[in-house]
Amino acid sequence: MKTKIAVANGDGIGPEIMQAVLKIFEANDVQLEYEFVEMGKSYFDAGHSTGMTAKAKETIETLGLLFKGPMETPKGKGVKSINVTARKVWNTYANQRDFRTLNGVDTVFSKAGIPINLTIIRENIEDTYGGIEHLLTYDVAVGRRIITRPGSEQVIRYAFEMARRKGLKKLTCGHKANIMKLTDGLFLETFQKVAPEYPDIEASDIIVDDLCMKLVTRPQTFEAIVLTNLQGDIVSDLCAGLVGGLGFAPSANIGDNISIFEAVHGTAPDIAGKGIANPTALLLSGISMLRFLGFSKNAADIENALLYTLEQGVHTGDFGDRSIPASNTTEFTEAI
Amino acid sequence: MKTKIAVANGDGIGPEIMQAVLKIFEANDVQLEYEFVEMGKSYFDAGHSTGMTAKAKETIETLGLLFKGPMETPKGKGVKSINVTARKVWNTYANQRDFRTLNGVDTVFSKAGIPINLTIIRENIEDTYGGIEHLLTYDVAVGRRIITRPGSEQVIRYAFEMARRKGLKKLTCGHKANIMKLTDGLFLETFQKVAPEYPDIEASDIIVDDLCMKLVTRPQTFEAIVLTNLQGDIVSDLCAGLVGGLGFAPSANIGDNISIFEAVHGTAPDIAGKGIANPTALLLSGISMLRFLGFSKNAADIENALLYTLEQGVHTGDFGDRSIPASNTTEFTEAI
Ligand SMILES: CC(C)[C@H](C(=O)O)[C@@H](O)C(=O)O
Ligand SMILES: CC(C)[C@H](C(=O)O)[C@@H](O)C(=O)O
Repeated sequence: MKTKIAVANGDGIGPEIMQAVLKIFEANDVQLEYEFVEMGKSYFDAGHSTGMTAKAKETIETLGLLFKGPMETPKGKGVKSINVTARKVWNTYANQRDFRTLNGVDTVFSKAGIPINLTIIRENIEDTYGGIEHLLTYDVAVGRRIITRPGSEQVIRYAFEMARRKGLKKLTCGHKANIMKLTDGLFLETFQKVAPEYPDIEASDIIVDDLCMKLVTRPQTFEAIVLTNLQGDIVSDLCAGLVGGLGFAPSANIGDNISIFEAVHGTAPDIAGKGIANPTALLLSGISMLRFLGFSKNAADIENALLYTLEQGVHTGDFGDRSIPASNTTEFTEAI
Repeated sequence: MKTKIAVANGDGIGPEIMQAVLKIFEANDVQLEYEFVEMGKSYFDAGHSTGMTAKAKETIETLGLLFKGPMETPKGKGVKSINVTARKVWNTYANQRDFRTLNGVDTVFSKAGIPINLTIIRENIEDTYGGIEHLLTYDVAVGRRIITRPGSEQVIRYAFEMARRKGLKKLTCGHKANIMKLTDGLFLETFQKVAPEYPDIEASDIIVDDLCMKLVTRPQTFEAIVLTNLQGDIVSDLCAGLVGGLGFAPSANIGDNISIFEAVHGTAPDIAGKGIANPTALLLSGISMLRFLGFSKNAADIENALLYTLEQGVHTGDFGDRSIPASNTTEFTEAI
């Protein structure tokens, strides 16, 4: 029997990169069945305030797993980001992004011979992402930042478990508890309380500004970092930059009942439909999803194929060795 | 007649690097007179809740300019960072940090041939730095983030004026207005309202996570960036990393009545008193201070001397070409 998951193509280049990834899955005989759901920009436009149909919501909740392409949220003060809404309504409290040097993807760090291999775990629901803000007067805007003990504990436990599962030696907590003594203080305190339960993992903490300085000077000194939501958002993108950009960064939103694997880069409307988009980030997210579902063999095979293809210098137009002609999405996909 | 300024040595390596910088000033015949003020860790310990004596406060307020070494704030939930207090009580609303590649200071970016030359202007008083937090319950911590229109406007105007004074072509506003729609929205809106008054400066804005990704991939595309307080804190340290760390980053806190020029790196208690500390960051802050005071000739001369010394490979133990023996603080100072 095949495992059934929900799939949302996404906007812009979404459909073509999703097609590319599912084709690679098929070629590798992945035993998955897909139920495509209606979610994305056009559903906002059609009047669905959350950017998805009731049917989509139901399907995702039944299946418990969503694989999604990049999505665009229409601009407007009242409209909430669909990505953020999805994380919140389904309580996917941990966001995991794995960043590693890919041979064939040149970066300032790969050229300097500095290998990157680090995982960012970001709390995915609390913090200023609650969106609780008001204008006190015309001139004064007030926002609320909320950090809870259970919310902190569940993501911190997830981070320690993940570190153990991956056989990592170190987990670092990034925070700004020297200034936000109660909110980030609570997060840090929770980290320090949980840490002794994982004596096999060396736990340490670092102030987030110092962390960012060290990430651009000695990123190889970190293995995994857990942070509150907004700081985690910023640090994740910094780390994506270290390995070549969001086009090479997978993202998994993990909850107890529902998990979402997604491409977090933009929808690139300018190149949509041209068949030249780079499916790597979505494929990396797909590989994480296969591992999560227990399809370890498929995951390893496809990962090896991807790494081998990149190493051979095969690349789409957005990266890689300019002396080797760029492939389009189909050629890149076939190569893998 | 000499101009009189207040000087606070700071803690740890503070006194020795301050001495080094003042010696360089003296050698260059800088027409400044110093009034040393009592401020820093030992004054907290002696019972001054703000870390400075009443006399120090009075002197700084009379002279309007403070040149300060690094300071340590004793740990404890009730104690506020002395650096933050100083910025707040004297309303130094703009924090300016200039980052540029220094020949002789090797970094991942200098090795890749990517020159860095950018200025971060950070709002210096508002945001979560107000420290307004409470525990709603044992499990829930709430912090308040406040952004005001006048507060935003004064730092944004400062940034545009600075860009014009320096002959820059571009100013970028970093923000997270896609999530913090009212608070960061107010900051961004203010930026967009002020921008047309400076048609000679190309104004643009960018979401802070994307900014951090671009800063580690293509930092040379930015000239100056203005941000709210905490995001500015994080981005400043990231940029310090790009040029070799906080040991090479000057910092100026500018207000209408009082300005503070400081070294923002740590107090390095482990090497304090050994005469091996690197005075570069404090010297760079001192050079900015000389320019601010109108001593442009002194500033240029000392800056050239510093750049030449670094280019020659002279270095303290914390950086530089390992094949050239490290100098101690005195030798490094003499060389300049
Ligand atoms: C699109 C945006 C709302 C989102 C976030 O801030 O979380 C993005 O930056 C991300 O990292 O997934
Ligand atoms: C020491 C700390 C309170 C301070 C800050 O957060 O502003 C520091 O990081 C800085 O950048 O000057």
